[in-house]
Amino acid sequence: MTAEIISIGDELLIGQVVNTNASWISEQFNNAGIKISRINTIADEKIQILSALKEASERAYIILITGGLGPTKDDITKAALCEYFGTKLIFESSVYENIKNLFKKRGFKIGELNKKQAEVPESCIPIENIHGTAPGLWFEKEKVIYVSMPGVPYEMKQMVKDYIIPELLKLFSPGAIVHKTILTQGLPESLLAKKIESWEDNLPGNIKLAYLPSPGTVRLRLSATGRKEPELERQIINEITTLKKIIPGIIFGYDNDRLYEIVGNMLREKNLTVSTAESCTGGYIAHLITSVAGSSDYFKGSVVAYSNEIKESLLGVQHQSLINFGAVSEPVVKEMAMGIKNKMRTDYTIATSGIAGPGGGTEDKPVGTTWIAIATPTKIISKKFMMGDHRERNIKKTAMTALNMLRKELQA
Amino acid sequence: MTAEIISIGDELLIGQVVNTNASWISEQFNNAGIKISRINTIADEKIQILSALKEASERAYIILITGGLGPTKDDITKAALCEYFGTKLIFESSVYENIKNLFKKRGFKIGELNKKQAEVPESCIPIENIHGTAPGLWFEKEKVIYVSMPGVPYEMKQMVKDYIIPELLKLFSPGAIVHKTILTQGLPESLLAKKIESWEDNLPGNIKLAYLPSPGTVRLRLSATGRKEPELERQIINEITTLKKIIPGIIFGYDNDRLYEIVGNMLREKNLTVSTAESCTGGYIAHLITSVAGSSDYFKGSVVAYSNEIKESLLGVQHQSLINFGAVSEPVVKEMAMGIKNKMRTDYTIATSGIAGPGGGTEDKPVGTTWIAIATPTKIISKKFMMGDHRERNIKKTAMTALNMLRKELQA
Repeated sequence: MTAEIISIGDELLIGQVVNTNASWISEQFNNAGIKISRINTIADEKIQILSALKEASERAYIILITGGLGPTKDDITKAALCEYFGTKLIFESSVYENIKNLFKKRGFKIGELNKKQAEVPESCIPIENIHGTAPGLWFEKEKVIYVSMPGVPYEMKQMVKDYIIPELLKLFSPGAIVHKTILTQGLPESLLAKKIESWEDNLPGNIKLAYLPSPGTVRLRLSATGRKEPELERQIINEITTLKKIIPGIIFGYDNDRLYEIVGNMLREKNLTVSTAESCTGGYIAHLITSVAGSSDYFKGSVVAYSNEIKESLLGVQHQSLINFGAVSEPVVKEMAMGIKNKMRTDYTIATSGIAGPGGGTEDKPVGTTWIAIATPTKIISKKFMMGDHRERNIKKTAMTALNMLRKELQA
Repeated sequence: MTAEIISIGDELLIGQVVNTNASWISEQFNNAGIKISRINTIADEKIQILSALKEASERAYIILITGGLGPTKDDITKAALCEYFGTKLIFESSVYENIKNLFKKRGFKIGELNKKQAEVPESCIPIENIHGTAPGLWFEKEKVIYVSMPGVPYEMKQMVKDYIIPELLKLFSPGAIVHKTILTQGLPESLLAKKIESWEDNLPGNIKLAYLPSPGTVRLRLSATGRKEPELERQIINEITTLKKIIPGIIFGYDNDRLYEIVGNMLREKNLTVSTAESCTGGYIAHLITSVAGSSDYFKGSVVAYSNEIKESLLGVQHQSLINFGAVSEPVVKEMAMGIKNKMRTDYTIATSGIAGPGGGTEDKPVGTTWIAIATPTKIISKKFMMGDHRERNIKKTAMTALNMLRKELQA
């Protein structure tokens, strides 16, 4: 059973907004066993919407539409849907009640614009929007199901999870497909591909492999298709067992695991704490760690020491070390790791110092030169990396590399 | 002159990778005056690629293809292109020279896999890839131009900027379209829409308005179409002048301005410095500020004080204030702002303390309760916000709100 997504919005076509809705929906549907075969991103124009609907209905049985249901005047999806389904807008009191309650809760007065949002196409089933004023719209026509959702991510997400996927699963029992993604850190794509080449060549015919590189990580996705899920899962587990022996230490997790969450869970389980002393990463490691709910259980804090002055005054880095070796050096990054340990009294610490670029490079220390140190309860390790020449990627790579170094120490 | 994008990759359809390439390309082409009318995201399957090419060629004159040109075995774009154009792969020595040089520069040995990358379809013009091994491929067929690019973002970006757009502009002189995006902070979408309703109603017919909300920001995009660019630009400037009077203080910038970059430039121009003391934002404000190259000119550092202990020991927050008022309170956030000022000796400071959620809320202080303080050379201001109930959004909204508070102080 395949589905297509139609993402409506001029903002997506002029590059102002990245289509994260489509990728989120794709992930949820795949996990539910419904394959997304195509994403069509089109403009806020009635004629485009009408032709995209028609084309998609010739290829897929489920059509998921996002965008264009808001109260503002650039939204024309509802009008296009009425025309496509040959129906008209009617006032729906249950939708209006939901809008009124929402406004009451937020302490706002309800406006005329919002009353218009309670109008829905007569032939649809409205879907409750818990977080917002625009309801979802569910249509069926010639054996094809169409679901129109708001473009606001958290409104759309709640609808998909709580209503749309459960309803679709009642109607269809999809064929088996199992995806498993192996997350790696520490080898660039081409070296990784070389190392696992013979493993890849020997994969069974029903298993497909894809490489997904991003700064500091390469993800390997295995997709197995067949009749029975447990069988496919067993097949995949076998392949991963073989792979683990070929690249030990490189695999840090699976699927949606996030390295900073894995590290956090390890710390929590062992009742340990961490803090960071960041120069080139500028607080990004602290941000990643604290983006996880409950991170206060193991994260005490961070000192972002961007200037040398602060490295000395807040982290106790020796003036002489800065003079003799420079801020991007092994002695300084080690002193940073020990300095934050003294200040925050945590079991582990991470310290980073590097030249993120684009400026600041020298012949001895070109842009990308980065030192990372990890202090553990018993020792301090440090390592130098050449990250490359792109600021944003350097920051991300450094963060991922540092977190994986910490993970390995926690595992040891 | 309109173009379509075909994004190839299973990873995009199972939601593992967000299609940032398509939005970046869209932005570049729009800025060059070539409208992207549709983005087609499809699977790594030959049959899908062939039909997407055919369909797009019936609607557009320029077709931009990304993905599937890498050395790994999941890539089949090149084979599909050969079939579509009725041509075959030939070894191209100029491409091989480029690959050899690239490997030499990185100190790697060239492999067999890489030699295959020097094979290109006979009927295409290969496009040099400065940053990677897979060349771009330029085809022309029945007055339609097809350009196939690698999916690796920085390889693709260099090709688009340095070769593809300049070549296309030589061939076409597109009709005038001017986009201008107004960036606002401080009013939620519905209140903003209400305030500017009559301005919106009075916009000239050739100007379209769209609302683009994201956590902490609402962007208003004006798109004017017509014959002459200078005329359209004048029209838009007039409309913005009117709008500024309706929502003073709310507009912080235009187009790709980033609030943290604007604030950084204001600091640099006035030769002033800033530091942050972050609790609920966990280093995110420091990360935003340091994501800008050259931020060390005005940013000294940050203390992320996630635990109360660190708020006391590193920021000098009074134990009694934490006991009497709690960490999320006006006295504490003010003490944090003053504490970081003492430690870092900067002209301005930002402090945040809030309950990001999902846990930690109480009846008095529900999830989303957030205090922000800004210390200036002469005073300290503080304000309470109710951010909502979503952790990630709360962190982002708090960061944007704090940066806008600082911007207003710098402007005053």
